[in-house]
Amino acid sequence: MAESSRHRRTGVSPTRDEDFPGWYQEVVRAADLAEPAHVRGAMVIKPWGYGIWQRMQARLDEEIRRRGHENVYFPMLIPLSYFQREADHVAGFAKEMAVVTHHRLEERDGKLVPAGELAEPLVVRPTSETIIGQSMADWIQSYRDLPLLLNQWANVVRWELRPRIFLRTSEFLWQEGHTAHATEAEAIEETIGSHRMYQQFTEDFLAMPVIPGEKPPSERFPGALQSFSIEAMMQDGKALQAGTSHYLGQNFARAADISFLDSDGQRRHAYNTSWGMSTRLIGGLIMVHSDDDGAVLPPRAAPHQVVIVPILRGGDRDGAVLEYADQVARAAAGETGPDGGPVRAHTDRRPHRSAGKRWEWTRKGAPVVVEVGLRDLDGGQVTWRRREDPGTVQSSALDAFPAAVAAALAEQQDLLYARARQRLADGIRRDLTTFAAAQEYFRDAKNPGFVLARWCGAPDCEVALKPAGATIRNLPDESAGLTADGPCLICGQDAGLTALYGLSY
Amino acid sequence: MAESSRHRRTGVSPTRDEDFPGWYQEVVRAADLAEPAHVRGAMVIKPWGYGIWQRMQARLDEEIRRRGHENVYFPMLIPLSYFQREADHVAGFAKEMAVVTHHRLEERDGKLVPAGELAEPLVVRPTSETIIGQSMADWIQSYRDLPLLLNQWANVVRWELRPRIFLRTSEFLWQEGHTAHATEAEAIEETIGSHRMYQQFTEDFLAMPVIPGEKPPSERFPGALQSFSIEAMMQDGKALQAGTSHYLGQNFARAADISFLDSDGQRRHAYNTSWGMSTRLIGGLIMVHSDDDGAVLPPRAAPHQVVIVPILRGGDRDGAVLEYADQVARAAAGETGPDGGPVRAHTDRRPHRSAGKRWEWTRKGAPVVVEVGLRDLDGGQVTWRRREDPGTVQSSALDAFPAAVAAALAEQQDLLYARARQRLADGIRRDLTTFAAAQEYFRDAKNPGFVLARWCGAPDCEVALKPAGATIRNLPDESAGLTADGPCLICGQDAGLTALYGLSY
Repeated sequence: MAESSRHRRTGVSPTRDEDFPGWYQEVVRAADLAEPAHVRGAMVIKPWGYGIWQRMQARLDEEIRRRGHENVYFPMLIPLSYFQREADHVAGFAKEMAVVTHHRLEERDGKLVPAGELAEPLVVRPTSETIIGQSMADWIQSYRDLPLLLNQWANVVRWELRPRIFLRTSEFLWQEGHTAHATEAEAIEETIGSHRMYQQFTEDFLAMPVIPGEKPPSERFPGALQSFSIEAMMQDGKALQAGTSHYLGQNFARAADISFLDSDGQRRHAYNTSWGMSTRLIGGLIMVHSDDDGAVLPPRAAPHQVVIVPILRGGDRDGAVLEYADQVARAAAGETGPDGGPVRAHTDRRPHRSAGKRWEWTRKGAPVVVEVGLRDLDGGQVTWRRREDPGTVQSSALDAFPAAVAAALAEQQDLLYARARQRLADGIRRDLTTFAAAQEYFRDAKNPGFVLARWCGAPDCEVALKPAGATIRNLPDESAGLTADGPCLICGQDAGLTALYGLSY
Repeated sequence: MAESSRHRRTGVSPTRDEDFPGWYQEVVRAADLAEPAHVRGAMVIKPWGYGIWQRMQARLDEEIRRRGHENVYFPMLIPLSYFQREADHVAGFAKEMAVVTHHRLEERDGKLVPAGELAEPLVVRPTSETIIGQSMADWIQSYRDLPLLLNQWANVVRWELRPRIFLRTSEFLWQEGHTAHATEAEAIEETIGSHRMYQQFTEDFLAMPVIPGEKPPSERFPGALQSFSIEAMMQDGKALQAGTSHYLGQNFARAADISFLDSDGQRRHAYNTSWGMSTRLIGGLIMVHSDDDGAVLPPRAAPHQVVIVPILRGGDRDGAVLEYADQVARAAAGETGPDGGPVRAHTDRRPHRSAGKRWEWTRKGAPVVVEVGLRDLDGGQVTWRRREDPGTVQSSALDAFPAAVAAALAEQQDLLYARARQRLADGIRRDLTTFAAAQEYFRDAKNPGFVLARWCGAPDCEVALKPAGATIRNLPDESAGLTADGPCLICGQDAGLTALYGLSY
């Protein structure tokens, strides 16, 4: 059959080795995660991609609330003048904002045109510090109102000249935390707490090892005093910034007049933090774990963990195969999965498509695919494959299957993490100590990874680095256990800081 | 203490009787659900309000997915030209859209101004039929691709000239379902299915009885062939449209060319539906259940169902009272609540504010408020009150408390529904059969409710009705068991339709 043979082609083309960016785009397409929208720079997140996002949201929301933050929702359209208040903030964002100037359409000569010009233009939020700060100023009067711990799930728009699906799109979905504190120490503790939360979430839930650290001054969030990031390494060696946490000091508090009467009777400005994580991470997930057969999803993030494909080629016996498929699904769902909930099992009941279904779910990265046919039904057995090892067919008796599959999911989660952790460790060069050597590496190596070396802290050195295409990704936290010796990688002068250099998305 | 006496004032002012719209605004404020934003027409949804929305989302999302729909996310900015394709649609929405015309800000003479004018303006989605239709046209090729059942959780913007918190705001949050089908019959079945889902959700979960029915032609969604609504009655007798389901026929399919090769080899346009429910419902919830002490929340929708307030006035005994409070919370959470999950119990550990806390939670509508002090601890008992009967103090032994509170929550959910159902039944006049009588009722009665009477179906009669301030809310479904006799309420001619007339929000 034409359909069968078309679907039987499993590998994606190009492969990672042939063309990594091309492979990435093709995996996103083949796994049906998302597609570019007809609107330039925007994307449509399809059910399988949105399912991953909903899993991520649920887990992260739980953690954010456990830490004492409350969810809120602020207007998306922000008066232009709000951006004028914090000079660094606007300098960093002004180049990429969508601006609403009219509130009506009118028909003129049979064509719709904008009408009802606004007295003050509104900006579609690129981030919400300015508008949330405005309300914080209303809500905070006394030290008793602090800390104020807020979080928002929202869409944001940042105009992108070189869009890339999930990684850089004009609109994306994210979570943005915004807090206010009475003291600098508390605000810094909050910033670090969020930074640690992001590290734990990406490593435990997405099986993506990261290097946590502080951003160099030039890469700070516009208006922040300190920015922290977690940096993951993609399979092509490039870095992906996967979550950032900012200590804003009193900059935004002064701009919006967020002040409080302290316990000593003095009026003081509050100290703010903000931190965010977005749908960009779905792109990172793909680039860390997937292979030349398509997407590979860590079980905790997979919308379905076990997909049961009924094989009806030889015809079903009065629906007995479909019924058996459901029985297998129910059995799996009776077991606890690697995220503490029931195993998420799904029977693919779509008619017409049975021939290519196994490959379709392989391309989509379902952690376990089960095929059940008449033979399995008659033998009371289950035939299944793990996504990271699709060539090996496993067979279990029906009553042994739930425990076996739960163990396989947990193992697969751990395996993906261990594999990526090893790749990250192997991908850090510590032996490059001159700028010439580093430049050559970033320019000539196939898939150059990170370079760990010292940095003197001079902005000039960062500028000198740019032509090599690399940047300082961050200055690794002590907890990362990464320290370098020697002089500044760029200028060769004495240097006290350890920096992680790399190409990035 | 000043603080204590300030918080002890519980009732909201004005009362429902004195000024219903004023009371509503005051309850929203006193319960700390939301507040008007500094941006005109927009609101800030605060933690307690957003908590209700998250509860609603979780429940409705589960039901939408159970019915086979998949969540997706489409771009918020829609090219202007998309709106030109469906003439009725644009005529209905053109008056109230936010239009993005620039993608950058530039500083000129120290002032930020919009720059980077777009070749084609983008409209902030007021609803997503046009952009989702565009993708449906790509995704649907054959009858095998149907039905296509999508849902989106999103923010939308409709410029409002007379904003009202939750009820009419320029931006609101909602869920929008969009489906495509091979036949008219299937699409109509889907429309009715969503309509029934909304009725069940509002009645079971929000304890808001509604009258389901079809909208008259003049009140249809722009571009729809049939629109269905559920109409709830507020305590002032006015109707609130609480969820709408639209059968779009092939209008949008023709506009976006959503067509498929049918099993008979013919190319046909698909049949579409769309349906939505929004944060507006939070306003409805308040206006149906709340009283002059503040908000009253149905237990299923309440973010916390049981709030434990530790009484520390006499001082705590080495934290023993706080510990006992947590013990009470854990005991309650061990019980299954009226929504099938564990009872949501919360200990209010905020320092400084203990004096007014009980009243604060009463105003917020927490279904059960527990106060625990040294005496309760020593007696091993729990002292508590139900929100809908705050004057009656209940006392339970600690081990009997979980079952008692779970029963009280279930009872309260039922009681709120029964009370609102009775009010709705009492609020429908069936004895008004002349236009003059109806006009007088809508004009002169204190809080006029609904009028059930016949309608001849003529648009002229609907127009004639407008000066009375009333509209035809819907033509009740057979399932509502509401039929009227007699002539058309407006023109007095023979009439075959039963209509529900009323004032509305």
